[in-house]
Amino acid sequence: MTNQTNQTEETEQQTMQQSKQQFKQQTGSTISLPDLLAQMTLDEKIAQLIQLAVPFYEGAVDAGLITGPMESLGITEDTVRNSGSVLGMAGAADTINVQRIHLQNNRLGIPLLMMADIVHGFKTIFPVPLAIGCSWDLELAELSAEIAAKEAAVSGVHVTYAPMVDLVRDPRWGRVMESTGEDPYLNAEFARAFVRGFQGSDLAGDRDRVAACVKHFAAYGAAEGGRDYNTVDLSERQLREFYLPGYKAALDEGCEMVMTSFNTVDGIAATGNAKLMRKLLREEWGFGGILISDWGAVKELIAHGIAADESEAAAKALKAGVDIEMMTSCYAKHLSGLVENKEIEEALIDEAVMRILTLKQKLGLFENPYRAADPEREKEIVFCDAHREASLALAVKSCVLLKNEGVLPLQPSQRIAVIGPFARSGDLLGPWSWTGSHDAVVRLADSIKHKLDHPAELHVADGCGIETSTDAQWEEARAAAEASDVIVLALGEHSDMSGEAGCRANIQLPAVQLELIRKLRTLDKPIVVVLFNGRPLDLHGVYHEADAILEAWFPGSEGGNAVAELLFGYANPSGRLTMSFPFSVGQVPVYYNAYNTGRPQGAADAQVRYVSQYLDIPNEPLLPFGFGLSYTAFEYSDARISSDQMVMGQPLEVHVKVTNTGSVAGIETVQLYVRDLAGEVVRPVKELKDFRRVALEPGETQEIAFTLSETQLRYYHSDLSHTSDNGDFTVFVGPNSRETTALSFQLTK
Amino acid sequence: MTNQTNQTEETEQQTMQQSKQQFKQQTGSTISLPDLLAQMTLDEKIAQLIQLAVPFYEGAVDAGLITGPMESLGITEDTVRNSGSVLGMAGAADTINVQRIHLQNNRLGIPLLMMADIVHGFKTIFPVPLAIGCSWDLELAELSAEIAAKEAAVSGVHVTYAPMVDLVRDPRWGRVMESTGEDPYLNAEFARAFVRGFQGSDLAGDRDRVAACVKHFAAYGAAEGGRDYNTVDLSERQLREFYLPGYKAALDEGCEMVMTSFNTVDGIAATGNAKLMRKLLREEWGFGGILISDWGAVKELIAHGIAADESEAAAKALKAGVDIEMMTSCYAKHLSGLVENKEIEEALIDEAVMRILTLKQKLGLFENPYRAADPEREKEIVFCDAHREASLALAVKSCVLLKNEGVLPLQPSQRIAVIGPFARSGDLLGPWSWTGSHDAVVRLADSIKHKLDHPAELHVADGCGIETSTDAQWEEARAAAEASDVIVLALGEHSDMSGEAGCRANIQLPAVQLELIRKLRTLDKPIVVVLFNGRPLDLHGVYHEADAILEAWFPGSEGGNAVAELLFGYANPSGRLTMSFPFSVGQVPVYYNAYNTGRPQGAADAQVRYVSQYLDIPNEPLLPFGFGLSYTAFEYSDARISSDQMVMGQPLEVHVKVTNTGSVAGIETVQLYVRDLAGEVVRPVKELKDFRRVALEPGETQEIAFTLSETQLRYYHSDLSHTSDNGDFTVFVGPNSRETTALSFQLTK
Repeated sequence: MTNQTNQTEETEQQTMQQSKQQFKQQTGSTISLPDLLAQMTLDEKIAQLIQLAVPFYEGAVDAGLITGPMESLGITEDTVRNSGSVLGMAGAADTINVQRIHLQNNRLGIPLLMMADIVHGFKTIFPVPLAIGCSWDLELAELSAEIAAKEAAVSGVHVTYAPMVDLVRDPRWGRVMESTGEDPYLNAEFARAFVRGFQGSDLAGDRDRVAACVKHFAAYGAAEGGRDYNTVDLSERQLREFYLPGYKAALDEGCEMVMTSFNTVDGIAATGNAKLMRKLLREEWGFGGILISDWGAVKELIAHGIAADESEAAAKALKAGVDIEMMTSCYAKHLSGLVENKEIEEALIDEAVMRILTLKQKLGLFENPYRAADPEREKEIVFCDAHREASLALAVKSCVLLKNEGVLPLQPSQRIAVIGPFARSGDLLGPWSWTGSHDAVVRLADSIKHKLDHPAELHVADGCGIETSTDAQWEEARAAAEASDVIVLALGEHSDMSGEAGCRANIQLPAVQLELIRKLRTLDKPIVVVLFNGRPLDLHGVYHEADAILEAWFPGSEGGNAVAELLFGYANPSGRLTMSFPFSVGQVPVYYNAYNTGRPQGAADAQVRYVSQYLDIPNEPLLPFGFGLSYTAFEYSDARISSDQMVMGQPLEVHVKVTNTGSVAGIETVQLYVRDLAGEVVRPVKELKDFRRVALEPGETQEIAFTLSETQLRYYHSDLSHTSDNGDFTVFVGPNSRETTALSFQLTK
Repeated sequence: MTNQTNQTEETEQQTMQQSKQQFKQQTGSTISLPDLLAQMTLDEKIAQLIQLAVPFYEGAVDAGLITGPMESLGITEDTVRNSGSVLGMAGAADTINVQRIHLQNNRLGIPLLMMADIVHGFKTIFPVPLAIGCSWDLELAELSAEIAAKEAAVSGVHVTYAPMVDLVRDPRWGRVMESTGEDPYLNAEFARAFVRGFQGSDLAGDRDRVAACVKHFAAYGAAEGGRDYNTVDLSERQLREFYLPGYKAALDEGCEMVMTSFNTVDGIAATGNAKLMRKLLREEWGFGGILISDWGAVKELIAHGIAADESEAAAKALKAGVDIEMMTSCYAKHLSGLVENKEIEEALIDEAVMRILTLKQKLGLFENPYRAADPEREKEIVFCDAHREASLALAVKSCVLLKNEGVLPLQPSQRIAVIGPFARSGDLLGPWSWTGSHDAVVRLADSIKHKLDHPAELHVADGCGIETSTDAQWEEARAAAEASDVIVLALGEHSDMSGEAGCRANIQLPAVQLELIRKLRTLDKPIVVVLFNGRPLDLHGVYHEADAILEAWFPGSEGGNAVAELLFGYANPSGRLTMSFPFSVGQVPVYYNAYNTGRPQGAADAQVRYVSQYLDIPNEPLLPFGFGLSYTAFEYSDARISSDQMVMGQPLEVHVKVTNTGSVAGIETVQLYVRDLAGEVVRPVKELKDFRRVALEPGETQEIAFTLSETQLRYYHSDLSHTSDNGDFTVFVGPNSRETTALSFQLTK
């Protein structure tokens, strides 16, 4: 068997070498794209605009499936042979093989672009993006994308459908786990970091990078009711102020591609929205890269009810500026006819083809269509120790300590029960980890065991399943708890409960898990809850019942180790929430950068009843944006501002001293917010403008200096101009969006 | 005592006569408003724009309070003396007295306008507007407003702050009870009916009418999170398509006044929103009547953060077109200075004053400043039997039978337990019934008692309070239930749990009431739940537990009688929901006229996971718009359309036969919906276009004919043009928005 495998590999390598030579003869290394375009038939051009998934491609592992899907789409084998890109293929051997066969069949030798959803790691899975957001660590975020790119590139991937930068305020929406949260500034900073990590500074020269595709343009995260794919309705000002900055930042960082969103934007599905795509994205922002539809989104214009049939869907999408249709065949079946009937101009198609060819050239595919794909190097790089260490480091930084009543850190000498459906679960990677190494996930109970003085005294029990329970599970859990000094209760949502189409109307933990907490409470043991989940939860039944809570999200390949490091204090929790944890789902949407209203609760002259509030719950979320605890304490002092007057071109400095008053080293995230007290339109009660992560030894004090300039005070006015206004401002510094020190200044331009 | 009272009354009547004569001498009956304006000082003009509440006015019952509030507002006695209108005063004697003293003090003898919130009845309280909406009975709705106007007018009121026509999709919002629901067409029809009822066709000649003031302009019902006064953000297209038709309909019907809303509209609080008020309301719609701020809303521009101080608030509101400032003193303190500094033109003030004087003239106040106020006639008219009968009739039509598993109607021979906090509660009037006769409310247990063969066998118990319970209450309830054949369980929200600022994040019944149901279930008696509440509820813990459910809302003065009539089958329930009852609060907003999305659940080619849905609950509300049961059954047959082609100017006819297949007479509300299958922007899956209430005897069949014309197919396009598009349409007929028969046609213009 071994011999045969080796022989096959050798043969494949030879074939690959032959293919590369053959290709160079055909194309040369200095190909002229206009010349190439001129040689293409209309059908060949249209085929470049088609993107299909792996099973359509000869040479792919599942090649046997080719007939079925092709028939259901009603497209020809020729279209598939000439198509411009493929979706979801990875693995050096496979991608090389598919590319080789593709080039053998493709008249002009135009290589396939291999695209895939590499969202938070390839084989080495990092925490989900919402968790990465909570690290507030842009360097590690960038590194995570760089590593993902390196693993993906060597496996033959050229483009990743990431970063996802959709601002989100509704934790019911399953894709909150893919976003870095509710703040436009922080989302934009992470968007830049991810793009830098994926693409590097020299995409052409650096074969360890992949092209990034920012998604989902636009405002996908504002789905009504938090129900995925649902209607989005926003004023254009709201769209520009909160939802667009993330995408714009990615593009400013050079992101090569953009993906459309599934939702409507002002009544027109994004994929057919010329105002959004052609006018704003292309004309106003000058985006010249590839715009790709999300999966099936071109044909979905029919379900949306803005196209009567596939032909109209194709016309609307192309006119809107969509270059590649993913997974449906409106372009393949109808563009040719639309050109013939003069309903669209061939120039529009040429434009789209040129964008695709340009990216292929930029990626060096005409010189080397296999690019970094390399089965040998793949084995060395993918899921290597260095990558796993980076994943561990980021997971440690991503966990957020939500509560700690003196029970953490744990002591190695303690007798510990690890109970709950996540005690020994490998489901720590979260959604969008299809390429990940699920078998190699480090599980919590195992990691805790390694930390103990007396590993034999670790007691592990499920207690219940994610959504089911048995008496036997409870009995096992009770026994484990009774034999221990402290309970680590690993609870959460399985990974299908968030992610795409993973929306929940009830955002509490499943009932059986809440029941498990209630029962364990009766045993009078300290309970440390560790949460594995993909969204901010309603913590009723958890928050008051637990002695400590660590929000671990889906922490990735090294999840168990990261949590264990934190639980035992080998690392000090430093994560800060980037999305509010609501008091209950009845409070949604709740986010820190809201408007004051005309009747704010708690104002000096507020009436008792007639203010903006609920009768039955507070206005404030349970845990605010920016919140997170540490094993040490930080004291803020001497907050001051360099002047109470700001004039044009002369930024102010805001200073504050932060002291580690506890007994262990820790990292504090010092946050700077601004409020514009009177604008032409209403302004948020707080807006994050800057932050600084500061490592402080016990007793150490650092003075943090922020620079605040007039450009940071600009906002979208009612005429959509982006300017600042003279007047009074408040600047806030503090450890989170709730506990801040306020300073005042006046802008006079 | 009696003698003295009579003497006082006589003296007052003489004084009134003297006042009237004196006034006529001063002003004459053919007053020229421009001449009057020309005589006014700037301060006198500004004072016309001020509206203060009762305690500010000499002669009012609470006149002793005058100093306190005046001081807190920082305005002068002169301003109060010259102010143009008064808020919340009613009662003929009081209003006459205040007007008399006002005229004695007012240099030019300009009478006060007396305004008040007469929302769903004056002393005779009708069901809350949401309940009236559920009647789908425009004639009775008009009559309710006519009666309210008559009672208010004779009590000295000139203007009512009604109708409230805010479209609403979020049951958390407390003011849902003031709206007729989630449908723009139905809301518009009710807006017209209420305006007709309040104003009649001859406001000048018909002293039994009052001027109407439509509110709250605009989109107050779209408060984010269902939290009153909270931010509203909508695209302008959404605003025009769903939220504006109600206001526009009221104005088309001649509504004299408009009130601003508390919320922002596209980032600017309505009260300072020139685009909304000056441009859309005044210029585009041509509204020339008085625009009044809501309570304190001018000063609230500061809290909103769009005015730095009271002076800027005054300038912004006046420029936006707000004529009267209610209850704050920005105009009083700052308009004069703003004119002096040339920051506003005096012409703007003149314009506002002229609008106010014009309404006073239109109401005949210059001829008779007391208008219909008449203490003697007041005694005859107010809360008279005829009015109470009308209230009863509307309450009967407003209740909605939500479930009936063979237990209703009740029999007079049954032994009945009436249990629950609403069993003998007088809190049946609902919010906005401050003028109502609370003592005279007909209570449920009393009304049921009158229906029984053996009244002695009625057992009444509270069971629990609205939000509290005691063991004794439960014991009493159990005893009552055990002694009875059937339990009528009267549950709900006290009236402060809805209405202004009455927002709830949890929209279930309070926990003690759910607990009461659970306990009563164990007794194995049929349970008929009667709900008294101001919002669509999450009926978990009620719907499956009850054998029958009658939604009675807050049914008004005759509430007990109306419910008893229905429970015993003397009347047949005919109400239909005008707002969806959500499955749970996690589903909010949920409404029938939503968009399809690109991935609708349940579509023929829908995937299992990747569709727009929640994992844990259905997409559909528990009970849909238009839903309501009857004691009889209606069968729909032979639905047909006159042609499958519609051309311009040639409406189609849609016919359907409806048969009463049950054994009692009943009223069916036949509903007509339309769907535009492909638009330039997305179109709702169903839109109500027409309806017909049909009374049918047992066995009777009627053929209903609807006319459907091209104008009904128009909608707002992305450029905000209001036109129709050629293409395919579906028309639906049926008993509610869920159970419909579909027919197809094509529009070719």
